[in-house]
Amino acid sequence: MSAGINHYKTDLRELFFTLFEQFGFEQVAGQAPFEAWGPDEAKAVLQETYRFSKEVLGPLNSSADREGCRVENGTVLTPKGFKEAWKLLWEQGFKTVGVAADHGGQGSPMMLQVAVEEMLCGANAAFNMYPGLTFGAAELLSECGTADQKKKFVEKLLNGTWGGTMCLTEPHAGSDVGAAKTSARRNPDGTYNIRGTKIFISAGDHDLAENIIHLVLARVEGAAPGTKGLSLFIVPKLRVSADGSSGAANDVALGSIEHKMGINGSATCVINFGENDSCLGELVGGVEHIGMSQMFKMMNGARIAVGIQGLGLASAAYFNALEYAKDRKQGGHFTKWKDPTSPRVPIIQHPDVRRMLLEMKSHVEGIRALIVKLAMHTDKAKQLQGKDDDRAAYHRGQVEVLTPLVKAYGSDQAFRLCAQAIQVYGGAGFIKDYPVEQYCRDSKIFSIYEGTNHIQAMDLVGRKLGMAGGAHFQQFMEDVGGFVEANREHKTFGTEVKALAAAQEGLMSSAMVILGWSQDPAKVSLIPLSANRFLQMMSEVAVGWLLLDAAVLAEKSLEGLSATDPDRTFYEGKKWSALWYARNVLPNVEQAARMMVQEDASPMQIPDAAFAASL
Amino acid sequence: MSAGINHYKTDLRELFFTLFEQFGFEQVAGQAPFEAWGPDEAKAVLQETYRFSKEVLGPLNSSADREGCRVENGTVLTPKGFKEAWKLLWEQGFKTVGVAADHGGQGSPMMLQVAVEEMLCGANAAFNMYPGLTFGAAELLSECGTADQKKKFVEKLLNGTWGGTMCLTEPHAGSDVGAAKTSARRNPDGTYNIRGTKIFISAGDHDLAENIIHLVLARVEGAAPGTKGLSLFIVPKLRVSADGSSGAANDVALGSIEHKMGINGSATCVINFGENDSCLGELVGGVEHIGMSQMFKMMNGARIAVGIQGLGLASAAYFNALEYAKDRKQGGHFTKWKDPTSPRVPIIQHPDVRRMLLEMKSHVEGIRALIVKLAMHTDKAKQLQGKDDDRAAYHRGQVEVLTPLVKAYGSDQAFRLCAQAIQVYGGAGFIKDYPVEQYCRDSKIFSIYEGTNHIQAMDLVGRKLGMAGGAHFQQFMEDVGGFVEANREHKTFGTEVKALAAAQEGLMSSAMVILGWSQDPAKVSLIPLSANRFLQMMSEVAVGWLLLDAAVLAEKSLEGLSATDPDRTFYEGKKWSALWYARNVLPNVEQAARMMVQEDASPMQIPDAAFAASL
Repeated sequence: MSAGINHYKTDLRELFFTLFEQFGFEQVAGQAPFEAWGPDEAKAVLQETYRFSKEVLGPLNSSADREGCRVENGTVLTPKGFKEAWKLLWEQGFKTVGVAADHGGQGSPMMLQVAVEEMLCGANAAFNMYPGLTFGAAELLSECGTADQKKKFVEKLLNGTWGGTMCLTEPHAGSDVGAAKTSARRNPDGTYNIRGTKIFISAGDHDLAENIIHLVLARVEGAAPGTKGLSLFIVPKLRVSADGSSGAANDVALGSIEHKMGINGSATCVINFGENDSCLGELVGGVEHIGMSQMFKMMNGARIAVGIQGLGLASAAYFNALEYAKDRKQGGHFTKWKDPTSPRVPIIQHPDVRRMLLEMKSHVEGIRALIVKLAMHTDKAKQLQGKDDDRAAYHRGQVEVLTPLVKAYGSDQAFRLCAQAIQVYGGAGFIKDYPVEQYCRDSKIFSIYEGTNHIQAMDLVGRKLGMAGGAHFQQFMEDVGGFVEANREHKTFGTEVKALAAAQEGLMSSAMVILGWSQDPAKVSLIPLSANRFLQMMSEVAVGWLLLDAAVLAEKSLEGLSATDPDRTFYEGKKWSALWYARNVLPNVEQAARMMVQEDASPMQIPDAAFAASL
Repeated sequence: MSAGINHYKTDLRELFFTLFEQFGFEQVAGQAPFEAWGPDEAKAVLQETYRFSKEVLGPLNSSADREGCRVENGTVLTPKGFKEAWKLLWEQGFKTVGVAADHGGQGSPMMLQVAVEEMLCGANAAFNMYPGLTFGAAELLSECGTADQKKKFVEKLLNGTWGGTMCLTEPHAGSDVGAAKTSARRNPDGTYNIRGTKIFISAGDHDLAENIIHLVLARVEGAAPGTKGLSLFIVPKLRVSADGSSGAANDVALGSIEHKMGINGSATCVINFGENDSCLGELVGGVEHIGMSQMFKMMNGARIAVGIQGLGLASAAYFNALEYAKDRKQGGHFTKWKDPTSPRVPIIQHPDVRRMLLEMKSHVEGIRALIVKLAMHTDKAKQLQGKDDDRAAYHRGQVEVLTPLVKAYGSDQAFRLCAQAIQVYGGAGFIKDYPVEQYCRDSKIFSIYEGTNHIQAMDLVGRKLGMAGGAHFQQFMEDVGGFVEANREHKTFGTEVKALAAAQEGLMSSAMVILGWSQDPAKVSLIPLSANRFLQMMSEVAVGWLLLDAAVLAEKSLEGLSATDPDRTFYEGKKWSALWYARNVLPNVEQAARMMVQEDASPMQIPDAAFAASL
């Protein structure tokens, strides 16, 4: 048991590089609506968040995992320390850094908010579910709610007085949200009677806030089947009166909580609405049948947030593994491994350990760059809206195509990298005394919730590729192409930039292959069969590009530094991240493109009964 | 909680195919020393083992995970039900199927024993650690012990009266076994006083047997440093008198047990030997300083056993995921996904689910074939020894080269496939109500213990490739080549056989590349940097080959079957396993070969300090 010990660590220098050197925070900050923000303010927030993550959230991570949540008198009791952490988190404004001032936030660029979130998630992924869902509910209501709803709910959600949830999943409606059976019956006073059971509701009940505001997808009686017939309702656990105070119970009952592989500090609830037919809800925005599109406003943010969760844990796993590898002595140097009298060396000197660490480093930095880039596009779209609508549309388009990459690649790699961290530790990694086995367990859900990674892949291939006549994808490719053209003969990275160009060609040809399939009914099943592969290819091109972009910048910065400048090794590190990824990952994209043209449909051709003789 | 519910399932038809149709059990059985065995006897054992796995071991798997082990009065108490299971296991002879009759076993070919083990491990990996270690200790003593030691210990180990362990690891001697500090001081009567602490000792203490026989690596005072100075000792928990009865305590104290990510029913112990300087041990075989080579006799078997553990869990995960996918309805058919009124279909109809299932199926079947093949070589080596020594040497050589593949590829894929099973389940897979999250947690240790997978890779690249002047590897390649030549123009699988040929070429060229590096001191670090990649390449060639071999057999068998024969779909399934693997995995081998010649040494070139600015 390591209750009370903080394991969270990161490297602020790397966060600063990504925000300030690679993605030009200064170009975004300082102008409306981010006038109040400059690099100094941002650095102060990052330092403060790191302190909070190490001092408050980190020490609760393993203890909450061991203790888990429990149900008493129909309420979830969260693990020890969560209440205090919740209070401090909201008081100190970590969750509202990026919230506009008119909703009580500090109005920073999203670039800063994602870096803050990375630390909060990395320090305690389970805890951060509660404020995360609350934040999402507040965002949705501040965008889609009526004036009255905004007034009544948003402020209290954003100061932690109340918690929020999103209630989509039902026992027979998971990925298939449209199959939801929860019903809503209109009452004469404009409210609705809600009835149904929702499952897998994260933060569905807890003892952190005085009330919980559920956002519930339900079907108004007589509405169409499928997602089009769904409406979104505000269903508080305790009814909220006109003056905004919460009072009597609203027939919202906790069914049970799940026992899970990970994120044990986060309560995953079954919630029964309207067991006594007295559960009242109000329609979000006052409009029926648009629940799904309203929910999607929250869901896009939630998908990005899942990518950030992945990054947070993968990064924490990397830095812990690195520290362990520098500390732990085992075996002699590999050039002297036959000599038992040679001095024992820290395991970071063993080639395979270095290989694992560099693999982790490059992935973590590349995924971080991808996420900050996405945030930068969001910020610029906001800034340019109404000033330069074409540029704003370009930025919004990049957000569209990058979102499934961030969610799916970020989460798939997180789990893989956390498992790799266990391998760096050896047997110790499997033991609960060290933090990495928990990171691995916690991270497994990221590839599943907020739309499985296959749903992300289909979103990319089936929607985003063709969106705006293919313009978003094309612009992404042009951006990569611009970098390639500018750096093809780069003195240090020329070879690797050419590898990026080859990968990009593979990606382009695969996009064309998919386009061909979409026009041939006999081949249409090849699209879902290849979607995950395509998402990975595009993610690898994006990450390879951003790592090389960082390396080119790092090399320029090195030129201006004295031989003894402590930043030299940092910039050296950026170069090796890019080199490793370009040499060891980018070639897989071309290879995947070659596999694509095989048009292997074997999973569709094998008869169901042939999967096993006896099942 | 799913205590008491069995989740274990397999497909005996598939096991029968591998043993009887693909690897010619009949050619091995029926002749000395396996005279008593024929297919009928083997099938009866497999059926009986499956029954035992479902009825006795399976129902204890999740309950043992939840309950774990605990320490009371200095002794480990194992989870509920383990005592009864232990008793039945030995009584009914499941562990001694392959043990020679003169040691009280049934003397079956190893081919049968590995299939039996797969089921025992798949049903309850944690439980099977206890008899597994006991079996290993018995095997070692029956090979290396003096006549007296054999008499005193082997029988009681093999009937479950006593348990056994292997005690290698110490706090500062994990992968670096040679750094062990546990000491042995000669006593005038020929016994030794043992002193030291061993950690991560599986089954190091428990309540299943009346005594525990530890096999302890220790250094006799004055012996050389490193592995060469280690000797192996029999150190019983309770002293054993000349008549074979166990009596007084032997100063062997349980320090503590670990809390782990998985295999929670297996006690992982810290054991203190000689805290009061009264811990007596006797030298295995009566010879000092050969402890490491004696231990290796046990370790080779243990490494194969780990591969089997991986196979057991991956296979159980596959069949559970398959059953769930056939049962669980979610979403409409992908050709009608926009129509919410289309009937909901079992998720096995969704292309990406089929892709995951076929990926699991092909890997599980291919790894099973690899393991049974290794066992077949062991059996034939035993049979041919003294009759045809050249052929016997060939078979032993194949065991040498295949062992690291079975251990490392088997365990790496097991973890990956168990995680994939979670993905098939979606959110339910993350919940403890279903068995797959436990399979995933349990399987993570397999890539670490009994020599990390990098140690396996170095064993392959640094020892096995060059063993016997490279003959073993060359014979492996000739066997693959023979299959390729015979089937290059196969009417159904010709394209895929050519893919195998291309993969084999890639493997060959990489072996040559590695040979070159070994002769150039400036490039020697590329060997450990590439060893894992090479092991994976060779495993993929081996598995691709064996799957195609099975497919060719299946197609022949199909020719003789009537159109309504229920075996038709089974043989169809074998074909698709091979096709999928050949198209989606084999091309990666060529790609890996291309990466090899890049000679990327970036992990060695990055300075330690450049991994992070602030750590």
